[in-house]
Amino acid sequence: KMLQRVLCTVLFMGALPSLAEVSQGHISVVLLGATGDLAKKYLWQGLFQLYMDQVSSGHSFTFHGAALTALEPGQRLMFDVLKKLACPPDESPNRCAVLKDQFLKLSQYHQLKTAENYTVLNREIETLLRQEGLKEAGRIFYFSVPPFAYTEIARHINSSCRPPPGAWLRVVLEKPFGHDLESAQQLAAELTSFFKEEEMYRVDHYLGKQAVAHILPFRDQNRQFLDPIWNRHHVERVEIVLKETVDAEGRTSFYEQYGVIRDVLQNHLTEALMFLTMELPANVSRAEEVLQSKLQAFQSLRGLEKNSAVLGQYQAYASQVQEELQKPQDYISTTPTFAGVLIHSDSLRWEGVPFLLTSGKALDERVGYVRVLFKNRAYCTQSETLRDAEHSQCKAKQIIFYIGHGVLNMPAVLVSRNLFRPVMPEGTWREAVGQSDLHIFGQPLSDYYVYSPVKERDAYSVLISNIYHARKDFFITTENLLASWGFWTPLLESISHQPLRLYPGGVENQHLLDFEMVSGEVAFTLAEPVELLNPSRLMPSDYRTIQSKFRQSPLVSAWSEELISHLASDIEKTASRTVAQSGQFHLALSGGSSPVVLFQRLARHHYAFPWKHTHIWLVDERCVPLTDTESNFFSLHNHLLQNVRVPYFNVHPMPVHLNQRLCVEEDAGTELYAKEIMALVANASFDLVLLGVGTDGHTASLFPRSENGLEGAQTVVLTESPVKPHQRMSLSLPLINKARQVFVLVLGKGKHDITTLLSRVGHEPRKWPISGVSPSSGRLVWYVDYEALLG
Amino acid sequence: KMLQRVLCTVLFMGALPSLAEVSQGHISVVLLGATGDLAKKYLWQGLFQLYMDQVSSGHSFTFHGAALTALEPGQRLMFDVLKKLACPPDESPNRCAVLKDQFLKLSQYHQLKTAENYTVLNREIETLLRQEGLKEAGRIFYFSVPPFAYTEIARHINSSCRPPPGAWLRVVLEKPFGHDLESAQQLAAELTSFFKEEEMYRVDHYLGKQAVAHILPFRDQNRQFLDPIWNRHHVERVEIVLKETVDAEGRTSFYEQYGVIRDVLQNHLTEALMFLTMELPANVSRAEEVLQSKLQAFQSLRGLEKNSAVLGQYQAYASQVQEELQKPQDYISTTPTFAGVLIHSDSLRWEGVPFLLTSGKALDERVGYVRVLFKNRAYCTQSETLRDAEHSQCKAKQIIFYIGHGVLNMPAVLVSRNLFRPVMPEGTWREAVGQSDLHIFGQPLSDYYVYSPVKERDAYSVLISNIYHARKDFFITTENLLASWGFWTPLLESISHQPLRLYPGGVENQHLLDFEMVSGEVAFTLAEPVELLNPSRLMPSDYRTIQSKFRQSPLVSAWSEELISHLASDIEKTASRTVAQSGQFHLALSGGSSPVVLFQRLARHHYAFPWKHTHIWLVDERCVPLTDTESNFFSLHNHLLQNVRVPYFNVHPMPVHLNQRLCVEEDAGTELYAKEIMALVANASFDLVLLGVGTDGHTASLFPRSENGLEGAQTVVLTESPVKPHQRMSLSLPLINKARQVFVLVLGKGKHDITTLLSRVGHEPRKWPISGVSPSSGRLVWYVDYEALLG
Repeated sequence: KMLQRVLCTVLFMGALPSLAEVSQGHISVVLLGATGDLAKKYLWQGLFQLYMDQVSSGHSFTFHGAALTALEPGQRLMFDVLKKLACPPDESPNRCAVLKDQFLKLSQYHQLKTAENYTVLNREIETLLRQEGLKEAGRIFYFSVPPFAYTEIARHINSSCRPPPGAWLRVVLEKPFGHDLESAQQLAAELTSFFKEEEMYRVDHYLGKQAVAHILPFRDQNRQFLDPIWNRHHVERVEIVLKETVDAEGRTSFYEQYGVIRDVLQNHLTEALMFLTMELPANVSRAEEVLQSKLQAFQSLRGLEKNSAVLGQYQAYASQVQEELQKPQDYISTTPTFAGVLIHSDSLRWEGVPFLLTSGKALDERVGYVRVLFKNRAYCTQSETLRDAEHSQCKAKQIIFYIGHGVLNMPAVLVSRNLFRPVMPEGTWREAVGQSDLHIFGQPLSDYYVYSPVKERDAYSVLISNIYHARKDFFITTENLLASWGFWTPLLESISHQPLRLYPGGVENQHLLDFEMVSGEVAFTLAEPVELLNPSRLMPSDYRTIQSKFRQSPLVSAWSEELISHLASDIEKTASRTVAQSGQFHLALSGGSSPVVLFQRLARHHYAFPWKHTHIWLVDERCVPLTDTESNFFSLHNHLLQNVRVPYFNVHPMPVHLNQRLCVEEDAGTELYAKEIMALVANASFDLVLLGVGTDGHTASLFPRSENGLEGAQTVVLTESPVKPHQRMSLSLPLINKARQVFVLVLGKGKHDITTLLSRVGHEPRKWPISGVSPSSGRLVWYVDYEALLG
Repeated sequence: KMLQRVLCTVLFMGALPSLAEVSQGHISVVLLGATGDLAKKYLWQGLFQLYMDQVSSGHSFTFHGAALTALEPGQRLMFDVLKKLACPPDESPNRCAVLKDQFLKLSQYHQLKTAENYTVLNREIETLLRQEGLKEAGRIFYFSVPPFAYTEIARHINSSCRPPPGAWLRVVLEKPFGHDLESAQQLAAELTSFFKEEEMYRVDHYLGKQAVAHILPFRDQNRQFLDPIWNRHHVERVEIVLKETVDAEGRTSFYEQYGVIRDVLQNHLTEALMFLTMELPANVSRAEEVLQSKLQAFQSLRGLEKNSAVLGQYQAYASQVQEELQKPQDYISTTPTFAGVLIHSDSLRWEGVPFLLTSGKALDERVGYVRVLFKNRAYCTQSETLRDAEHSQCKAKQIIFYIGHGVLNMPAVLVSRNLFRPVMPEGTWREAVGQSDLHIFGQPLSDYYVYSPVKERDAYSVLISNIYHARKDFFITTENLLASWGFWTPLLESISHQPLRLYPGGVENQHLLDFEMVSGEVAFTLAEPVELLNPSRLMPSDYRTIQSKFRQSPLVSAWSEELISHLASDIEKTASRTVAQSGQFHLALSGGSSPVVLFQRLARHHYAFPWKHTHIWLVDERCVPLTDTESNFFSLHNHLLQNVRVPYFNVHPMPVHLNQRLCVEEDAGTELYAKEIMALVANASFDLVLLGVGTDGHTASLFPRSENGLEGAQTVVLTESPVKPHQRMSLSLPLINKARQVFVLVLGKGKHDITTLLSRVGHEPRKWPISGVSPSSGRLVWYVDYEALLG
């Protein structure tokens, strides 16, 4: 009856054009956590906005607030919120007042605690619909509850509250969605056991921010201008920034578990990053196409390393945590409240372009923006003073998606006038005027075309509208979520003991949080100010590299990352010296997992390496095709060769694959390789051989008690590995011992036992082939990390 | 007697510390062209400065002016100049007056016209020295004469005026030194027949400009700061600029032959470029080391193409030429008076950094500078308004060698304060102060450390002093000169018919001469304004590409450069489409010279090419090792593969070199290649085969009447070429005809006859193998340039 009354009112107002549209069916919205902060602040207002917008859509609505609170007090709490709902400025006060009245009548409070409660809710919805003779279109369940409650609620909804066949179910989930890849996978698996993918709407409210939501449409509508310039040849850098002035006070129980990367970067800023970097699908409003492009963009991201980020913590945070979480005075929080992260995409389009993601609390201003800065490719012959500001190509060229706050204090899209006049959707965005004295990103506002939304809409209003319209492209799918966690989790793990820069907060931060890119890494520009240094913050990485002896040979030891960087530098030095002396450098590299990090380091951080004069040889190879992912060469190619410029002729994979078969003696692959070495390497003495050590003491592919390769005249041999793939090709020990230098790299706790053993045993190559490495006239250096050395 | 008198005066003044030093010997300076413009304006003043500086050096001097003019009038002319010699501001007027008096007494005029004149001069010098009892230290002959007179004068000096053994000869030569590589070689050869390399001092007066001369010392003295940043990772761009406000009026007889590139870029700006790009020798004041570094830097320069330059001519130039050179009204000059050139070095240090050389007459200001702009690698977390100008890393970082004029109006070295405080030689450079309201390169002068010379010295004074000190590093050696002409000549040739942008001159030029870099080329930013277009300036390149039929197949024709760019685009389109369809693209490429330009174009201008998914095959190969410069693969590698990222596995050179021998049947290279094709290329149908045509109608390495490859089942064959190296490996005609697409590229006048023939004959592969190309189910397209097509 209530519904009919409301419908009559609506008809009376003329807002509902025809009864045919009424037959679109009924939608029940259930807001779980109806009396919580988020609901109070945004969600009810968003639902009211939805009602105002869609009252004449042909759908009818009921709104069900739910919480753990008992009926009476819950009802009171909820209606206190509803009564305060605001009328948007662009709505006529009359219409709004009428609609608000209706909205209140269509809203109802439920206690949802037990399984029984859910069954009752479901029955009530069914009854109502039956009474009103309405067809059910669908149900929206909005989870505005803490994540620990998700599973239970999901189970109840799935078992008791599913709409009848033909009507849809949409469950709306709020972050956090886990706090690393594993927990996110677990949560996703649980949810997936209750809901189908298309039923889940994971909210990232940044996707509802008007400027962020317009990135893809902007790229789409301005293809003609952007196609030639939206790439590494024209883009200088991209900044994705969310600065806050507030700190975490009062929220440390949440914040201390998450920190700025999980809170802001993994979700909000990453989504903006994806909108910028993804290849534009043919149709940007088709969620599935957008998702596929996005997933591809995730795959192109270069993995983050410890030094991809700079991290800070505002000084008051520690005492806030101690107080709010009742921690002892000496409790040290390692939670960052500021992060600057350098991200690279290895896609053809973006290779080499730095994407800087920055966010922090207690900073000097509140502002959010996405800024694409283009390279200056022009030379202006006219002297500076004579340049026409409007047309000179020597002025900065940028496109900015201004999310809000800051000097502009509104969402906006800015395009430098010397770029192009953008196509913007009429009706929803309009050109902004005035404020000509404002300067933004180094230029007067008048240097830009500035567009702002015709109606400024709150992110939750936008999102609730999109849930209603089933615009899944505004939400985070499971694959999307896991891809993002997959990207961020290695960084989160590697920085868990990273020192944090303490900053005073606000304008006092001065240049303390400025940072710079150096060889693909970032570092704070100013050295750590002594007075802010917390002496108890000595981190393992602060230990110095140990230089000593191991098995009578020089030993370099450090934590693995420092060790690798030390080793890479030593290899480069050797290479440069050798090339200077003899014009070429013959480097033999081992397979396995340890060298991968080294290869990456060489590719990314050693731009002066004389690759053009370097010959790359393999120490050993598995008998698989070179393009097999198991192949040592394949790994070497992927992590190193593909990224540097070694001439084709200087690359010498082992010929394990001849005549379409693998390591067959008659094909004489070993002789072929031996001849190639003889032909090119003077005296068959490699300039540098890099070896590893197995837990059984093997090195190269020379295993204990191997029949071949431990002694004798043969320089390249076929051997048998105890693990698959069994067949191997390897340089022999005598050949290795002819090298001018041999570096042995040993990494990780798993190698501690063999390392300890090797420190004690003598020359027993048949038992432990590595013990036979002893260059007859060359130098041997051990690179052993602390974990391998000290356990 | 005269000399002794002068020496007495000097002794009396106490400027000459001891007689021992007098024994350093006597120097005779002969200035040829003593009454010419250059002599009047700079050279006599420079010689006087030398005398003032070196009067107490222990050397004694005489100065001999010489010209074609008879003795009396010549003497009068010369002494009119000498009397006007100025005293430098940093010299005491007394001392200067005395020294000027002496200088005049030590100076003498000679008519030098006939061989006899030279003999007399020599005799006079000898007599004088004998009379005064002076040992001869050396002779300087300064050629301030037009280049056509060089050879004759050189011959006379060599035969009659050489100093006796033990004393040195230095001949100083003024540009122009030829006007392209050939003429420079010829001139150099002539001079070399008279003088030893160490006797020749070729002047580039830019090397005497104090700011230019300080580039190398600056790099040397600031190694600690520059070492990490003086490279492609930190340098954004370099600008080397010489702008003039004057035009060529009154000098068109010279200018019309040379133009701005020969006048300014080939010499002055190139020398500055070399100082910036060369590797720093251990000792920057050793001429030989500097020269070697410089020559190496020349070798690293990437060759210039037509589109490496933008060219202009001020509007009044044409009428000035018509008037001064008595040319007819319809005479059109193709001499550029403005040029902007983009130069790249392929050295590891500079790869990818744009070096922009710009010069022109009739511009808006007179100024010269070398500007090194560094990349901004910083993100400043603090908002703009709060940034400390002095320390923020987000401000521009630059190093400027300010040559003179412009807003600063003095030579200077400027270093952004956020870079470093430079080390400058005390005594010769000092920190400049004041003028804080000046803005230079977008920043207030106060943002820089600014140094200027303690004594501002004219370039010729600096150079004459350096001739005296035998500082050959301040002069252009023959090798250096030829390297520079070798670099510039191809551009000069390719632009000889390039359209010039007409510009009104002065501030009226507005943005007309601004230009931009696009994919390694430059172009004016503004489109050609119609009202300035000279309708008679239609150039061949303005013709449209012809699309038609040739031998019943599609024909694309254009001037060769446009044709190549068309072909490259078509290949990229085919590649992208094929990769989108099947995930990979199999491209078979021919050897020879025509494809080289194509390879370069693909490497430099097609960044979106899907190389990662492209397989590269060879159409044919010469039986030489792959690293032999004759090898097709070697050329392909050098011009294409080395510069793009084709995975190692996707590169398929022909196996012509097996078992240390070349193309031996038993080694079964052809079978090996055939198997590789079968294994990887679906149906052995290449996606695209690129062919050429020989003047004898051969294609691939299939020659007329070849026994192999024209028919039959064999897919890869060994063939015989009529020219060396005779042995070849080639895809067979039947295999080529299985391709999905075949493009045939035909370039140059030399191919006109065969092209004409082919347009008439039918399918006769035994006579003309190319006539047998007819893909059974694929598409054939002919790319024939106008020269081949039209003769």
